[in-house]
Amino acid sequence: MAVSIDEQISLLQRRAERILSIEDLRSKLTRSAQTGRPLRIKFGMDPTAPDVTLGHAVPLRVIRQFQEWGHRAVLIIGDYTARVGDPSGVNTTRPMLTAEQIATNAKTYMAQIGKVLLAGEKHLEVRYNSEWLGQMNLLDIIRLAARKTVGQMLERDSFKERYEKGVEIRLHEFLYPLMQGWDSVMIDADVEMGGADQLFNNLVGRELQKGEEKEPQVVIVTPLLVGTDGAIKMSKSKGNYIGVTDPPSGADGMFGKVMSLPDGLMESYYTLLTDLPAEEFKTAIVKNPRDAKVRLAKEIIRQFHDESAAAAAEAEFSRVIVGHQVPQEMPEMVVSGPTKLAPLLVKAGFVASNGEAIRKMREGAVKVDGEKVVDPAKDWTFAAPAVLQLGNRRFVRIKPV
Amino acid sequence: MAVSIDEQISLLQRRAERILSIEDLRSKLTRSAQTGRPLRIKFGMDPTAPDVTLGHAVPLRVIRQFQEWGHRAVLIIGDYTARVGDPSGVNTTRPMLTAEQIATNAKTYMAQIGKVLLAGEKHLEVRYNSEWLGQMNLLDIIRLAARKTVGQMLERDSFKERYEKGVEIRLHEFLYPLMQGWDSVMIDADVEMGGADQLFNNLVGRELQKGEEKEPQVVIVTPLLVGTDGAIKMSKSKGNYIGVTDPPSGADGMFGKVMSLPDGLMESYYTLLTDLPAEEFKTAIVKNPRDAKVRLAKEIIRQFHDESAAAAAEAEFSRVIVGHQVPQEMPEMVVSGPTKLAPLLVKAGFVASNGEAIRKMREGAVKVDGEKVVDPAKDWTFAAPAVLQLGNRRFVRIKPV
Repeated sequence: MAVSIDEQISLLQRRAERILSIEDLRSKLTRSAQTGRPLRIKFGMDPTAPDVTLGHAVPLRVIRQFQEWGHRAVLIIGDYTARVGDPSGVNTTRPMLTAEQIATNAKTYMAQIGKVLLAGEKHLEVRYNSEWLGQMNLLDIIRLAARKTVGQMLERDSFKERYEKGVEIRLHEFLYPLMQGWDSVMIDADVEMGGADQLFNNLVGRELQKGEEKEPQVVIVTPLLVGTDGAIKMSKSKGNYIGVTDPPSGADGMFGKVMSLPDGLMESYYTLLTDLPAEEFKTAIVKNPRDAKVRLAKEIIRQFHDESAAAAAEAEFSRVIVGHQVPQEMPEMVVSGPTKLAPLLVKAGFVASNGEAIRKMREGAVKVDGEKVVDPAKDWTFAAPAVLQLGNRRFVRIKPV
Repeated sequence: MAVSIDEQISLLQRRAERILSIEDLRSKLTRSAQTGRPLRIKFGMDPTAPDVTLGHAVPLRVIRQFQEWGHRAVLIIGDYTARVGDPSGVNTTRPMLTAEQIATNAKTYMAQIGKVLLAGEKHLEVRYNSEWLGQMNLLDIIRLAARKTVGQMLERDSFKERYEKGVEIRLHEFLYPLMQGWDSVMIDADVEMGGADQLFNNLVGRELQKGEEKEPQVVIVTPLLVGTDGAIKMSKSKGNYIGVTDPPSGADGMFGKVMSLPDGLMESYYTLLTDLPAEEFKTAIVKNPRDAKVRLAKEIIRQFHDESAAAAAEAEFSRVIVGHQVPQEMPEMVVSGPTKLAPLLVKAGFVASNGEAIRKMREGAVKVDGEKVVDPAKDWTFAAPAVLQLGNRRFVRIKPV
């Protein structure tokens, strides 16, 4: 059942913070429908950070829509710059990678995006940008650099802020947006997808294509998903993330993480990560926020796992958290006594230090076989297996030697 | 007769606005004296502007001193960037040159610097920077660019001024100082010579050498020679220059140009362009500025031509300007009458327009055979050869058909 171009644009707009421009997008979609030539939907991957979170899933879901309408995703693996890392040594988040590390990370990445995108040559083309960047010489780079001015680069939010604060910007950082833009020229991108923080870079690609007298790409950026802390952009390094390969349930499972979201985030999660109609989820949120959150969790698990995993996660969550029961499965830890509880909580990985463990005990968050233990000085000798618990979601089964 | 290292440094300081650093220079000179290994004195040449003026002669004279002490000049011909020109098309002073134009300009340049420098392999090594810049790939350039920050580049006077005034700086312009600096790394420069406006660029070379764990070059910059207008830096494009290949006498000769200098410039010209002791020329300037200027003109002509040319130029100048006589040789122009004088002055190239010619006549600056002609309306029919004159220095011989 064909979706009309007006409907396609309307569906894309649900998850698009900016589309530059809608006219160009409409004309590309129209021409593609007439000629049968699929559009090429570019998206870039940084091999130094291969983890895919629900934040990345937002633009990926838009790409999936394009794929379903017959277009082709073109994944660019930025291997060329990963090989140099950050030559100034200032930015430790840009380590220098070997060819093997790049290959491993690319494989990890592919496995994760496979949760959202259609695979197969018809739907997905994978390119390494060393293919063309490795051919450039100094004259090519001078010509490329001449396309932008220092002033234009300093208009980019992240550069502007650093320049104004006196945080150094190394010159090679100005070259990266140009290289990324050159990728668009080389693969003849029709559309580039990215998060809102990629707007500047992706517009450089659009400009460079114009400069080469090619048809400029449409730039679509999606909003940055706020992490589970309700405060900042979701990011693995900030610990406020839900990964697309996270298990459905358990202490680090999707269900529990979604249930821990601040209510205020539900609307954006529903909008960006599900296809439910806005009226429907808005009404549900108002009616019963808790039920709406359960439904959101199940919708997300259904996407990245399946229907039965969603149901099982809900059942498990009800049993453990709501019914205050212990989960059916949990890790085990062999213990020889007598011992105090604090070091066991550290060993189990529930807390970072004895001090934190003692605080948690005094707060009443620690239980043994369902009974609160508030005295950190007490010595324990376990004769039979017991369940040690922190809060509602951390459990370990203690086995005597 | 050997010159001690202290004396060498003292001689260099006469024409050095900055030496960075004197300690490094002393240690290089000392080591060279001990080992017999000559120092490598780098200076760069832009093939798009091959004209050598007395302004360029200032650093060249310092290089000549080094040569006389046994060191070697290393001329870098910046052919690599000349081949790209200014890719933004904004800077028309950076045209794209062909390999043939670069070769022609380099030859012209060599002929001119031959007026100051010692030639021969022992004294002078010539290198084209395409030799190494042509080998660089994008990773090399990223590593190089990572050595400097945007803030450091914007500290350079010319960039700072443009950035503050909102005059655009294209990104590739930030690469040029790095490329010039890389030249120093590749040729193992011990000293880089340049005008004061090259201080920033030449210090980049010093830094890049340190970064490569090589001994850093000493940077010596000479003051910018003020042009014959007494106002701004001498430059062919500003028309306020004396070229090292200018003829000794005549309307565009060295003698007349030096005699037209404002008195206030004499001291710097003596300092930078002659080896006369300071007390000697300072006394001479105070005693009789006109005689001091004649001596300066002769000193300069002696350097770039010879002793007899200096004497002949003085004699010619005295006869024409001081004695109000006509020169022995002058261009000829065939004229059919009747005609007014204004178009003849234009045709002779003395003025740009009839209007200017008429103004000059009314000012009393135009003579025919030594007689002032102030009436622009008068028609002339020349029966015999006559001398048409503008001011004291422009003459043309009119020949009737």
